[in-house]
Amino acid sequence: MYSVVKRILIGSPLASEKLGEQRLSKRVALAVFGTDAVASTAFATQEILVVLVPAAGMMALDYLVPISLVVIGLLAIVTVSYRQTLYAYPSGGGSYIVSRENLGTGASLTAAASLMVDYTLTVAVSIAAGVAAITSAVSALRGYQVELSLLLLALIVIANLRGVRESGRLFAPPTYTYIVMMTLLVGWGLFEYATGNLHQLPVNHHALTHFTGNAAVLAGATSFLLLRAFSSGAVALSGVEAISNGIQAFRPPESRNAAITLTWVATILGALFLGIAVLAVRLRPTLSPDQTILSTMGHAVFGNGPLYLLLQVSTVAILTLSANTAFADFPRLSGIVATDGFLPRQLANRGDRLVLSNGVLVLALGAGALLVAFNGDVSALIPLFAVGLFMSFTLSQAGMVVHHWRLRTPRWQGRLAVNAVGATATALVTIVVVVSKFSEGAWIPTLVIPALVLLFLSIKRHYDRVDRALAVEPGTPLPRIVHTVVVLVPSRVHTGVLEAIAYAKSLQPHYLHAVHVSFDDAQADQMADAWRVYGFDVPLDIVASPYRELTKPVLRYVEELDARWGHDVVTVVVPEFVVHHWWDQLLHNQSALLLKGRLLFRKGTVVTSIPAHID
Amino acid sequence: MYSVVKRILIGSPLASEKLGEQRLSKRVALAVFGTDAVASTAFATQEILVVLVPAAGMMALDYLVPISLVVIGLLAIVTVSYRQTLYAYPSGGGSYIVSRENLGTGASLTAAASLMVDYTLTVAVSIAAGVAAITSAVSALRGYQVELSLLLLALIVIANLRGVRESGRLFAPPTYTYIVMMTLLVGWGLFEYATGNLHQLPVNHHALTHFTGNAAVLAGATSFLLLRAFSSGAVALSGVEAISNGIQAFRPPESRNAAITLTWVATILGALFLGIAVLAVRLRPTLSPDQTILSTMGHAVFGNGPLYLLLQVSTVAILTLSANTAFADFPRLSGIVATDGFLPRQLANRGDRLVLSNGVLVLALGAGALLVAFNGDVSALIPLFAVGLFMSFTLSQAGMVVHHWRLRTPRWQGRLAVNAVGATATALVTIVVVVSKFSEGAWIPTLVIPALVLLFLSIKRHYDRVDRALAVEPGTPLPRIVHTVVVLVPSRVHTGVLEAIAYAKSLQPHYLHAVHVSFDDAQADQMADAWRVYGFDVPLDIVASPYRELTKPVLRYVEELDARWGHDVVTVVVPEFVVHHWWDQLLHNQSALLLKGRLLFRKGTVVTSIPAHID
Repeated sequence: MYSVVKRILIGSPLASEKLGEQRLSKRVALAVFGTDAVASTAFATQEILVVLVPAAGMMALDYLVPISLVVIGLLAIVTVSYRQTLYAYPSGGGSYIVSRENLGTGASLTAAASLMVDYTLTVAVSIAAGVAAITSAVSALRGYQVELSLLLLALIVIANLRGVRESGRLFAPPTYTYIVMMTLLVGWGLFEYATGNLHQLPVNHHALTHFTGNAAVLAGATSFLLLRAFSSGAVALSGVEAISNGIQAFRPPESRNAAITLTWVATILGALFLGIAVLAVRLRPTLSPDQTILSTMGHAVFGNGPLYLLLQVSTVAILTLSANTAFADFPRLSGIVATDGFLPRQLANRGDRLVLSNGVLVLALGAGALLVAFNGDVSALIPLFAVGLFMSFTLSQAGMVVHHWRLRTPRWQGRLAVNAVGATATALVTIVVVVSKFSEGAWIPTLVIPALVLLFLSIKRHYDRVDRALAVEPGTPLPRIVHTVVVLVPSRVHTGVLEAIAYAKSLQPHYLHAVHVSFDDAQADQMADAWRVYGFDVPLDIVASPYRELTKPVLRYVEELDARWGHDVVTVVVPEFVVHHWWDQLLHNQSALLLKGRLLFRKGTVVTSIPAHID
Repeated sequence: MYSVVKRILIGSPLASEKLGEQRLSKRVALAVFGTDAVASTAFATQEILVVLVPAAGMMALDYLVPISLVVIGLLAIVTVSYRQTLYAYPSGGGSYIVSRENLGTGASLTAAASLMVDYTLTVAVSIAAGVAAITSAVSALRGYQVELSLLLLALIVIANLRGVRESGRLFAPPTYTYIVMMTLLVGWGLFEYATGNLHQLPVNHHALTHFTGNAAVLAGATSFLLLRAFSSGAVALSGVEAISNGIQAFRPPESRNAAITLTWVATILGALFLGIAVLAVRLRPTLSPDQTILSTMGHAVFGNGPLYLLLQVSTVAILTLSANTAFADFPRLSGIVATDGFLPRQLANRGDRLVLSNGVLVLALGAGALLVAFNGDVSALIPLFAVGLFMSFTLSQAGMVVHHWRLRTPRWQGRLAVNAVGATATALVTIVVVVSKFSEGAWIPTLVIPALVLLFLSIKRHYDRVDRALAVEPGTPLPRIVHTVVVLVPSRVHTGVLEAIAYAKSLQPHYLHAVHVSFDDAQADQMADAWRVYGFDVPLDIVASPYRELTKPVLRYVEELDARWGHDVVTVVVPEFVVHHWWDQLLHNQSALLLKGRLLFRKGTVVTSIPAHID
């Protein structure tokens, strides 16, 4: 049953060797690795306004272009800095790898924790923003944000458990459609505005008071507020680092092609982000709880027709793919960290569809919890988002600085300078983000990231301890096993007990006893009689268990034997009967299973199951 | 953790010998065994009106006394009939026992199924009626019927898992308070009415149209409708059979004391039931979806003061105790049926508080499902109720007829006649109930009872099959066990593997091989190298598993060995390592557990765990 449902949802198993690579052209790679970065234009501008409108009202729009330009400046610095990583780590240089190579364990684990938080928030924010694009267009769905988010999440999870490849066929059409639609929105909008066919939009006072309240005079934007708005806009850089994980997917020369693609991605991202800001300053859309400003401007430029609908559909599509990207990145990262011993081994297991299924499920649980806790609200999630993002940028580029310093390849000084500027800028942004958004939610990743690092370290300690305990030198002599003590645990006399006695005798033990746990005197007498009638030449000890406990009396009995026989290995032979359907198994007490589970935890105890099969 | 929570909620364990009996005086026994019967007066009158008001409006009240008199006549017949059971089965004669002794397996299983359905509905209806009494008094709680019902159910379940004894201390105060309050309501109400201080209540037209709709002329009560109303009123007999299960709790002479108590219970029940009907005909309360008619009349007689509140509180209390009675009866009955082999053994296990915990949980799930499915609505549950009740009455009394016929004790003819009248009357009522309420819900028990009987029979067949398969004659020689084939399943080389090899060798097998399942070539080479380096003198076979499956390749390997070695016992030695906290265990793949589970289902396979302990 389970396996049929699994096959229908997940598909049939795939062999390990199919884990091959396919090489991508730059045009396709731009779609595959650029989606996450480009998709952030769908919400970054909106989030700047969400910070400013409550204080500045419609005047907030006037800050949009300057703030966007600062974000674009930061984007330029990060892009130039990351181009160097592409050349230095052609086999793939995510923040974890680069900081592990150059900065040591503490830094690399911090990078891993930051990235894991970042990926989880990428999923939550992308899905929430995608749902906002849906409810902007379809007003009947407003109020069902959380349900829609979880539905979208479930679809992405199923697709990923099947193993969606990051294939160009999947990524290219929505990504390019989105780029075209946004270009058309900005270009056509500005043209129509310039030619006087499109005018400033009327202020939606009802929507506005949702943000400003009924204050007669607004406070205006303070510089602290501007920093906070910048922190919100800075999430536009989310996804810029994606290419550094996937250099090996490019055609040769890999690093060069990756660098060219990264520049293109950054250019498109910057251009769209600036274009949206400029258009918004012209059209002056009112921030609204019901409509994203992109949807409001889309209505103004395209009307209500098919072009508007295509804009919204492509927005939902690119945001869904952006969430999907994190579903490739998170399991890959947690798989690497697990292989290094800092996360449970299960995160490095590939499922039978070659997918790191456990990583997919952990990410889904994390993102799902965020969507529920924050009501699927993008603006509530944004303060949590930028911390992990810029922390990982900083560590990656600080690692590159050390890399240049150590290797001193030709022209290393210039390269070191570029990465140092990048590291400094992103470190500053990290501080700005944490300080300006601390009380709004940035405290959460600020606590979670160190907690994750501590978790990683304690897991590593555990695995090291186990490895030390299990380690054995070649040439160590085998321990001497003498079957001194064998205990048989029959529940009543049946065919399985005969086999168990025969098996126990074949071990030729010095001491062979059977022990029976009885809950009352009648049961004890019955067992003693049966044992006598069958004439087994194995002595039977009967232990009373007034509290109807099975495992504790057996453990106590073994304990006593152990003390008497000088702590040799005790073999416990458990006769059990097995019926061949799980629903039949439900009709029998599972006491043998419990007993075996409990005995496993006792030192120096070997448990042998003698099953009697019943068809 | 689990055990701490369990101890707080459930209490510390109790020894088997505490399962003693305490003898009850008639006064206390009346409360303990009469509660269920007396409690049904809290809803039976209401339910007659629920059937009639939609057709007859306020005229429905005029049918109340005649219908109640018919129900009381039936009560008298059943009581006289049951008094004979008390003398014939002094050790306890529930419907299952009496029909098992006299009518055979089919009838007794039908009685068991009927009673189990009846007990489940007793819980659901009592709780729903208790909640109706609460929401009648506290209007703020209206609309939360289901939540309140489930809360009340949870409290009763916890109390029963702790093991509430059917003690007089618990039962006497609420039961006698209820009897006093109802007597006061009827007596004081009729007195005030007679002296002219209390008048007919005004018709609540708003409440009335809830039942009658806006029909200008009502259809009036047809005789079919009167049968249906009678079927609703007949649930007043619920609980009359309780004493027959508990005769041994009475002081000697047990049967005589039990018979006197039964007569008293029936008299009180009949008197209250008739009294309520007579008072209702005088006061003419309007049936309402918000207030029970008892609450409406309570308001009229007592006002809104403490006496009204005491009426409602004692109603809730007696109904809760009535539900609680089923929580003693259902597990006891299912325990007896399980001991007879017709239900899973687990239902006969006493938990460490001496409670038949599994029966309590099954009943709780059934009643909870009914409360949710029927929205905690008494009137929706009533059509399901009477079927099981009268079916079990009929079988019990038919059994008594056969009993008298077989034993022919002095004056058996008269006794046979009494039980024959009882059996005939209750059989007729069963038919009336099924026919008149079929489409309203009586079809559900009509299907469920035979389905349960089929389930009982198939469970019995299963246990018989297992017993036959496990049966062994005294004197059967032990099977010959030769350790021909031993297979070792190491995942990698560690201390546990050394112990496992030593243990495997100590079995002195003809054939000893190790088999390692590898997911890829690198892993295979690594294992082969390690095996060579350590110089173990056990041949290692490496099996490739491209789909990363562990258990299937091992099973295939064992299959091949088995064919080669003439189907002797194969011992599989599994080295595993055990860490001492479950949260540590989470950090390790549980592949050994899965492998052991799977091998258990293979015939002729003995599985031996060699644990390596790590602290």
